Amino acid sequence: MNFPQPLVTVDAVLLTLRESGLEVALHQRDREPLQSAMALPGGVVHANEDTSTEDSIRRVLRDKTGFEPRYLEQLQVFSGRDRDPRGWSMSVAYVALVPAAELEAATRAEFRFVSVDALPPLAFDHADIITAAVDRLRSKSTYSTLPFFLLPERFTLTQLQHTYEAILQTRLEKSNFRRKMEAWGALEATDEVVGGAQRPARLYRLKDFTFFDRSVG
Amino acid sequence: MNFPQPLVTVDAVLLTLRESGLEVALHQRDREPLQSAMALPGGVVHANEDTSTEDSIRRVLRDKTGFEPRYLEQLQVFSGRDRDPRGWSMSVAYVALVPAAELEAATRAEFRFVSVDALPPLAFDHADIITAAVDRLRSKSTYSTLPFFLLPERFTLTQLQHTYEAILQTRLEKSNFRRKMEAWGALEATDEVVGGAQRPARLYRLKDFTFFDRSVG
Repeated sequence: MNFPQPLVTVDAVLLTLRESGLEVALHQRDREPLQSAMALPGGVVHANEDTSTEDSIRRVLRDKTGFEPRYLEQLQVFSGRDRDPRGWSMSVAYVALVPAAELEAATRAEFRFVSVDALPPLAFDHADIITAAVDRLRSKSTYSTLPFFLLPERFTLTQLQHTYEAILQTRLEKSNFRRKMEAWGALEATDEVVGGAQRPARLYRLKDFTFFDRSVG
Repeated sequence: MNFPQPLVTVDAVLLTLRESGLEVALHQRDREPLQSAMALPGGVVHANEDTSTEDSIRRVLRDKTGFEPRYLEQLQVFSGRDRDPRGWSMSVAYVALVPAAELEAATRAEFRFVSVDALPPLAFDHADIITAAVDRLRSKSTYSTLPFFLLPERFTLTQLQHTYEAILQTRLEKSNFRRKMEAWGALEATDEVVGGAQRPARLYRLKDFTFFDRSVG
């Protein structure tokens, strides 16, 4: 009953919103296999110290980036005998949504931010993992408050709309978008405003994290 | 760089629609650990023969049930040091949707069908896995054609509506439901009808497998 067991790793797709739209944080591998190739931050599960694979990815991110994402979701397992030169392996892949400023301020590692629509050659099957993560985000964003996690904790309605537009790759009609956001009941106005006296914009925050089966568009 | 590696297993939540509503296929474990406990069908990944974890679960289902489900989706990984007495382990869990007649006709194993709302005590964390699978199905069913896979390949619109109602645990208004199904464009009428000459009902089939971000209710 003893079968050869897979090598088990965890990898994180850190997605953030920057100038070019949706970008992913990559780093250059500093060890074999595939040393110096661009890759997702990740590592091997340590069964002696991690309490779960989610604990593993949080440890890896803490060690490699110095911060913990507010939103971390398990994506799926990628597995097989050919994806890693070390042999039969599996990666439990996670997606994290991170406000750009937060990631840039906290990172210890040298990250390179790359548009998800123009990926360079990547180690292992990491390009497939990123594609699956972006598909998941885009599909969930049509009916959920997921995009809020790409914003700072307080944001204007214009920032929120631009975030949805960047993810969904479409323009949304302003009054329609605001009416839907209001109908969701997920937004809470704060006392703060930003901008000049002439065109002040109120700051909002997310009340709860809830999914909605309604279209945003 | 050698860390103790997890034991990697795969498990399947076989969901089907029967008298009581949504039911899951369980079997009695025939070996240690937890011999004779009720559990999901599953097994250990064989890195020497399986090409991926999806290949592993297909092998396990073939061996234990004698059939391959039309719809099989990766659910998520459950992991940790306490979930299996053999030590740190992880299960890559899958959901399969199976028409009841198909599963009953093909199964080699002795399955017991149990309502997902009245689970008996189960081995490992299999109750948590089933809960996650049912949540996933219910949530996706509000905006997708997923419930079609619980039906035979040809079905009446009344059967389709009852399937959605059983999953969503709500009554749907008939003409509204039919209008939405038509708007989705996923149904294809066949030449066949069932029922008597007085109230014949046309049989339909699913054109494609597509997700929609629209509410069914």
